[in-house]
Amino acid sequence: MKQLFLETHSLEEALKILNQRFNLSCPQEFPAETISVKESLGRITAEPVFAKYSSPFYHSVAMDGYAVRFKDTIGASEKEPKYLKINEEAIYVDTGDPLPQGFDAVLMIEEVNIVNDCIEVYQAITPYQNVRMVGEDIVATELIVPQNHKIRAIDIGAMLASGILDIKVKKRPVVTIIPTGSELVEPEEIKFREPKPPEIIEYNSAMLSALVKDAGGESLVFKIVRDNSDDIKQAIENALKVSDIVLINAGSGRGSEDFTLQSLRDLGELLVKSVSIKPGKPLNIAFIQNKPVIGIPGYPVSAYLTFELFVKPLISRLLGIVDGFHNESLKAYLSRQVFSQLGVDEFIRVKVGVVKGKNIATPISRGAGLLMSLVRADGIVKIPSSSEGYNAGTEVEVSLLRNKKELERTIVCIGSHDNILDILANTLKKNFPEYSMSSAHVGSMGGLMALKKAEAHIAGTHLIDEESGEYNIPFIKKFFPEGGITLINLVYRQQGLVVKKGNPKKIESLKDLIRTDVTFINRQRGSGTRILFDKLIKELKIDPQNIKGYEKEEYTHMAIASAVLTGIADAGLAIFSSAVALGLDFIPVAKERYDIAIPTEFLNLDKIQALLQILTNDDNFKRTVLSLGGYEINDMGRIITQ
Amino acid sequence: MKQLFLETHSLEEALKILNQRFNLSCPQEFPAETISVKESLGRITAEPVFAKYSSPFYHSVAMDGYAVRFKDTIGASEKEPKYLKINEEAIYVDTGDPLPQGFDAVLMIEEVNIVNDCIEVYQAITPYQNVRMVGEDIVATELIVPQNHKIRAIDIGAMLASGILDIKVKKRPVVTIIPTGSELVEPEEIKFREPKPPEIIEYNSAMLSALVKDAGGESLVFKIVRDNSDDIKQAIENALKVSDIVLINAGSGRGSEDFTLQSLRDLGELLVKSVSIKPGKPLNIAFIQNKPVIGIPGYPVSAYLTFELFVKPLISRLLGIVDGFHNESLKAYLSRQVFSQLGVDEFIRVKVGVVKGKNIATPISRGAGLLMSLVRADGIVKIPSSSEGYNAGTEVEVSLLRNKKELERTIVCIGSHDNILDILANTLKKNFPEYSMSSAHVGSMGGLMALKKAEAHIAGTHLIDEESGEYNIPFIKKFFPEGGITLINLVYRQQGLVVKKGNPKKIESLKDLIRTDVTFINRQRGSGTRILFDKLIKELKIDPQNIKGYEKEEYTHMAIASAVLTGIADAGLAIFSSAVALGLDFIPVAKERYDIAIPTEFLNLDKIQALLQILTNDDNFKRTVLSLGGYEINDMGRIITQ
Repeated sequence: MKQLFLETHSLEEALKILNQRFNLSCPQEFPAETISVKESLGRITAEPVFAKYSSPFYHSVAMDGYAVRFKDTIGASEKEPKYLKINEEAIYVDTGDPLPQGFDAVLMIEEVNIVNDCIEVYQAITPYQNVRMVGEDIVATELIVPQNHKIRAIDIGAMLASGILDIKVKKRPVVTIIPTGSELVEPEEIKFREPKPPEIIEYNSAMLSALVKDAGGESLVFKIVRDNSDDIKQAIENALKVSDIVLINAGSGRGSEDFTLQSLRDLGELLVKSVSIKPGKPLNIAFIQNKPVIGIPGYPVSAYLTFELFVKPLISRLLGIVDGFHNESLKAYLSRQVFSQLGVDEFIRVKVGVVKGKNIATPISRGAGLLMSLVRADGIVKIPSSSEGYNAGTEVEVSLLRNKKELERTIVCIGSHDNILDILANTLKKNFPEYSMSSAHVGSMGGLMALKKAEAHIAGTHLIDEESGEYNIPFIKKFFPEGGITLINLVYRQQGLVVKKGNPKKIESLKDLIRTDVTFINRQRGSGTRILFDKLIKELKIDPQNIKGYEKEEYTHMAIASAVLTGIADAGLAIFSSAVALGLDFIPVAKERYDIAIPTEFLNLDKIQALLQILTNDDNFKRTVLSLGGYEINDMGRIITQ
Repeated sequence: MKQLFLETHSLEEALKILNQRFNLSCPQEFPAETISVKESLGRITAEPVFAKYSSPFYHSVAMDGYAVRFKDTIGASEKEPKYLKINEEAIYVDTGDPLPQGFDAVLMIEEVNIVNDCIEVYQAITPYQNVRMVGEDIVATELIVPQNHKIRAIDIGAMLASGILDIKVKKRPVVTIIPTGSELVEPEEIKFREPKPPEIIEYNSAMLSALVKDAGGESLVFKIVRDNSDDIKQAIENALKVSDIVLINAGSGRGSEDFTLQSLRDLGELLVKSVSIKPGKPLNIAFIQNKPVIGIPGYPVSAYLTFELFVKPLISRLLGIVDGFHNESLKAYLSRQVFSQLGVDEFIRVKVGVVKGKNIATPISRGAGLLMSLVRADGIVKIPSSSEGYNAGTEVEVSLLRNKKELERTIVCIGSHDNILDILANTLKKNFPEYSMSSAHVGSMGGLMALKKAEAHIAGTHLIDEESGEYNIPFIKKFFPEGGITLINLVYRQQGLVVKKGNPKKIESLKDLIRTDVTFINRQRGSGTRILFDKLIKELKIDPQNIKGYEKEEYTHMAIASAVLTGIADAGLAIFSSAVALGLDFIPVAKERYDIAIPTEFLNLDKIQALLQILTNDDNFKRTVLSLGGYEINDMGRIITQ
């Protein structure tokens, strides 16, 4: 067994090592199987398919009408028509009929006049007119589809038309996934009970399995293997018996539970143990019994990315197809600066908005553990290892996770967070499947700035003016002195202190936040809730310095509620529905107006009209909002100012 | 039963009629079924999916290291480190472990120095540093995916991570396909015997069935129904019992076998009986028992197109998704003029070449019966009913049948036809799956013209100079006086007269073509074979007027051979391999040099290099060429002139 001293490899090096080694061991021609053409949709041909018969395989009538001999029509004209005797010189035929023996053309029924037992012909007809000649569509022996071709519906039609019933296709490469980790539980185990720490729900292998299917492979998921070298080695050996590629998930870090690396070393050649990519660094590549065994990192975003970068190309290679990392891509402009570490290929998730015909890519959370950020992302931007990052406005290539046309039909909503936005997004997709709404939560101020920079179509905002106590309008006037913004009311909502269930610390008002036994959790600067909070404590003459936790910021109402639920804080200012969602207590503090700001020029876009229609007309939507608690909807959809 | 007087509808009208009627009868919410999340890849959500649990659902360690209390680290510095007692003030933890009760941060193992039973801390740590807080990825109750969302691998991961094991997805709409026609045979019937006229292989329903699956539906194919109203009506009624949509194929024309229209009229409301589109005109739309029953035309291209235009949107509508006619599209310039009938929406198949970064769309055969032209097409261009056609150079929108990136990796070969080009295309795809070669057969002259207009990468050419008898070089010099073309030999090949097996007419040389009992079939003007033929008969002083059939032209060697095989002609000039392919006799006439012309600037393109590598190095390819017969390969890959 070779044992190399292994450092972190660059992405390029790691891919090169994997591919070179794979080319040595993988079969030049991946095994084929013979299947019925009718069942071959999406499969890959293992050899070229040539036509067995011509299509049509006999001269065939292309139009309903009369079969004639073209010679008999020579000289025919309007003035001097020719008369051809039916059943002797002219034979009635239907589309698809064989051309009767001895005849060589067809006169369309529409052009035929019957006189006694003859047809009248007014003009000469050319040989084989209205006849589908043998092989007009397909000539026997011609190539229908080449090898390494992914079979489409029309290919199935053409193969059957030419008499091909069975074909050889590549077998589906079998990829076995071995989840490892003593703390993992199968999702099924928590079907009828709650998960308990230190349990971790094992969801990566279901995701990897779906990715394998997407790539054209067949997946096999093993039961969870506990952290134990013997069990892991046994599982790998069992997997190798039935697989072309083995994936072993997690246990690829450096910690005490790191049995995977040792197992790979013991069983075969460990070629790569770490790759300078982010997310995805702790990736292992080994070859055991001449087959690739890949240690996929445990964090879900790392698992996804390393699959796409390292495993999908192997499956494609076995199938003989090209299916690189994310096929569809587009160019977009970064809405803000991103930094990246030199020497690391970093893959940044972005939301993509198409506003005024310009593609805007906005970087979102970067954690390797944030699967939802991948679910919400529209695409991925690679920042190469040679770059320290990009400035705002840089044009970047985005590998898309969603369809390009779908992006064009998406309403980009940037601004304040409210739980209703999720409901609104869903109602839009339900009532108008062609449209989507994607939301980014950066606070009310951030939303107005996004509108100003033409990076969003709409912005949720609830900014209270400290002096006048008026909502939103003073800010719109200030930021858009030239006008052009329409404000439409979404809801009035209750803001208040979210506290633990039963209110164990007996918090009754904002004044209690200066108690030394109370830890507060704040919202980020620029958010409407933060502005409201600062206004309220200023009125109460509370010094922020006296509030424990004032400096710790979260970005959404749900994050505030979650911090209270899990004991990070005792209280935070948030909307009523966030307390309801997590079963917390709530002390009302203020009612505020939450509006949607829309550049007036966007009002006539179909997707915005669809949204407004929901606000004004959808009773189901209104009922759902009311059911969340803490909302008043009497002005929903009303134009506040234009 | 409503019986309207029905004329031909425009595409727009027909779609409007179908959609309005469908909206009346189709369920607002298509039925759902509950399935396991693990099995949900590609399905469509029937309701929004909200997180059941947060992820992580406990504060979780993000790095291997020591759990500490952040307060204990305040004031630590390089000069004055703090010492925390292991197992009391600092507890060893692995990534993924729950954060021990009472602790609020983690110090990375890499930053820790152990001194006796303590860890040394050199700087203060912030609260919850290196901790994944509850809900950091997913907060319980948050929206994971909305309704009407097509489930991806990452969605499966996120749903399981948040404790969702089962979800409601839309059922797959059931589409039943009823093939009708007395002359049809199931493909399976001709598995062990040859088809005989008037049989027609029934391949449309397999193609339609695959299209249904592609669109997200479930297909059910009935046995062939003979042309008989009672049987057709019975089949429709049986189909309606189990389907959401019924397709009845063929029998939709005007002829005597037109039982479909009558059956539709008898059973329900016939709304549309003909649509002014080409291909696809004889399309019928009826509603029976409140369900759409669509009469799909029998010609395969018509069947494909009407499915995409009329049926796919219905399936999408039931699923609540948007999936219009061909999602991906690109802009391209037409390489030649196309005419179209006013008042008809015409759909033209095109090949798309990307040459020097410019997309060139070349219209190909337009027949409704030419399925192979659809298989070979790269996309479809719609010429609206208001247009009489487009000039060469017009920018058009191409709905793609192939992947955009695949097009960029395709070698566009325009020029003379030789059977070897099929083999070469296949070898390229086999040896280099990333590249494809697409060929259009327009003759040698047409190929050189395509190179000149930068519409092709390579051109096959075998043009003999009448004066010098030299191949290709004089033509290259004439058409490209500025140079820049490299000629590379493909083969020497035998041209000759293809005649029926056993040579019943005893044709021995070109001189026999003036016999009155011999019908000739010619190649098109501009083809190398035609130029060769004209040169040869001129030398023999044969007047073309004395050759019967001289004016009838075909575009490929195989078409010549096919014309001879099926009795359209007695002889034609073609290459030896075409006679071999169809089992015909062959009288050698001339040996000629067949070269590939390549603009020198393209020689360094990877795809061209791949092609040249096959010509020079691939012994398998050479063996295959030799096995066809009539070729000499001693100069294959040699540069003739540069």
